[in-house]
Amino acid sequence: MTGLDRFSVNQMTVRQLSLPELVAACAESGIGKVGLWREPVQAYGLRETAALVRSAGLEVTTLCRGGFLTATAPAERAAALADNRLAVREAAALGTDTLVLVSGGLPPGGKDLGAARERVADALAELAPYAEEHGVRLAVEPLHPMFAADRCVVSTLAQALDLAERFPAHQVGVAVDTYHVWWDDQAPAQIARAGAGGRIHAFQLADWTTPLPAGVLNGRGRLGDGSIDLRAWCGRVAAAGYTGPVEVEIFNEDLWARDGREVLKETAELFLEHAGG
Amino acid sequence: MTGLDRFSVNQMTVRQLSLPELVAACAESGIGKVGLWREPVQAYGLRETAALVRSAGLEVTTLCRGGFLTATAPAERAAALADNRLAVREAAALGTDTLVLVSGGLPPGGKDLGAARERVADALAELAPYAEEHGVRLAVEPLHPMFAADRCVVSTLAQALDLAERFPAHQVGVAVDTYHVWWDDQAPAQIARAGAGGRIHAFQLADWTTPLPAGVLNGRGRLGDGSIDLRAWCGRVAAAGYTGPVEVEIFNEDLWARDGREVLKETAELFLEHAGG
Repeated sequence: MTGLDRFSVNQMTVRQLSLPELVAACAESGIGKVGLWREPVQAYGLRETAALVRSAGLEVTTLCRGGFLTATAPAERAAALADNRLAVREAAALGTDTLVLVSGGLPPGGKDLGAARERVADALAELAPYAEEHGVRLAVEPLHPMFAADRCVVSTLAQALDLAERFPAHQVGVAVDTYHVWWDDQAPAQIARAGAGGRIHAFQLADWTTPLPAGVLNGRGRLGDGSIDLRAWCGRVAAAGYTGPVEVEIFNEDLWARDGREVLKETAELFLEHAGG
Repeated sequence: MTGLDRFSVNQMTVRQLSLPELVAACAESGIGKVGLWREPVQAYGLRETAALVRSAGLEVTTLCRGGFLTATAPAERAAALADNRLAVREAAALGTDTLVLVSGGLPPGGKDLGAARERVADALAELAPYAEEHGVRLAVEPLHPMFAADRCVVSTLAQALDLAERFPAHQVGVAVDTYHVWWDDQAPAQIARAGAGGRIHAFQLADWTTPLPAGVLNGRGRLGDGSIDLRAWCGRVAAAGYTGPVEVEIFNEDLWARDGREVLKETAELFLEHAGG
């Protein structure tokens, strides 16, 4: 397919495919970019994955994901930092310059979102220079406010930028995912702010469909199936100066139940229809 | 129980109780205020409900709910306006001065949240003077952003106030519900804005618990069970000058499966523990 130069498929969209299957399916569909996840990469082997994508000429656009930096207990906090340093090294080994961070939720019994965000800032201060040494930049991803308690205390692009701007742009930026920010009337201005600062380090697409499933994690919509004006959001990041890859990242049980190669091909087609060109 | 002067139980919290059961249970527990819902009131009879609460000396703090004002089709829009005028008359008949409005979601295939909010504004322009004639004020309730597509295009207090402030405060204000605004770092400032303008027309409490159930509507937590610092939010509305009733409104299948009188008593106790005093 033509028009897929900037298209990247996030591994989660077709998580039913093994890494060799994913690489083969990308070749079949003319897809040159993938966003990878740590767990399947670790399961297949970091070195093996790096060799596999390199030999196929696939570009790794992001590694998902580090983060979960909100613990208060010192041992838990130290473990999280160590794990994020490992994630940085994994990103470097895979040849991607971008590690996406999901901040983490409130600690057990916790009720203070602002204090949790400050712990994220403290962790970034330790991780950002380490990442730079490895040629990796951190992308703080705001998740939809429905995840504020249990997954990510950073709910808006404004909050993500408030964190990122404490550091140089080549160390820390943000990940813009339409699924998480589409409802936010402040997001367009924040995208402009992020672009002006050179801080849009990743851009991801998924559509918003309802009803949400239990747990609300795996109900993202295929491009065009939902309520998000995807082309308008693509235009906003473009107007902010972003020219990088556009990752499609969809968590959806129905898609995972289907043939992965078919889903990949369809995802690329829907990208062209709703976001490309 | 003492300390319940400002406590109001929203009917949905104990929807398993019939209206006479609810009135009796309130008397048992020393509860003097209720927030009512249109559907059960209509089922029992408007006149009959008004007589029932009046004879029991119960104060009706709000009627929930009008709204759903985002349709584009003229016939649907006219029907929504007519239904909201009926809701205004129902509120007046029940002796409450506050009709809570849930704005409505995107129309089928719609992707423009801003345009939908403008249609809400247009509808308010027709409804607000009508409500005033009946001694009723409208309370625009922002719902959590997870409802933006299918239930309420007004997701933040800032958006609700932007709508309300086009009208006099005695016509249109906002409803502040901790469940919907707790994640929003702008909400404290918006509560101050609302209070300064005399626009906090309702204040409701529910806690945020996870995992969310499918459909995400009926997973609200009992006070103290979740991630919300309820006492802090009570302090914010108090600091903004709000001295009105505090409604506890919990949509929760587990609570609905229990004995309603027991749930009512427990709800009042949890109010005293987590929000009262």
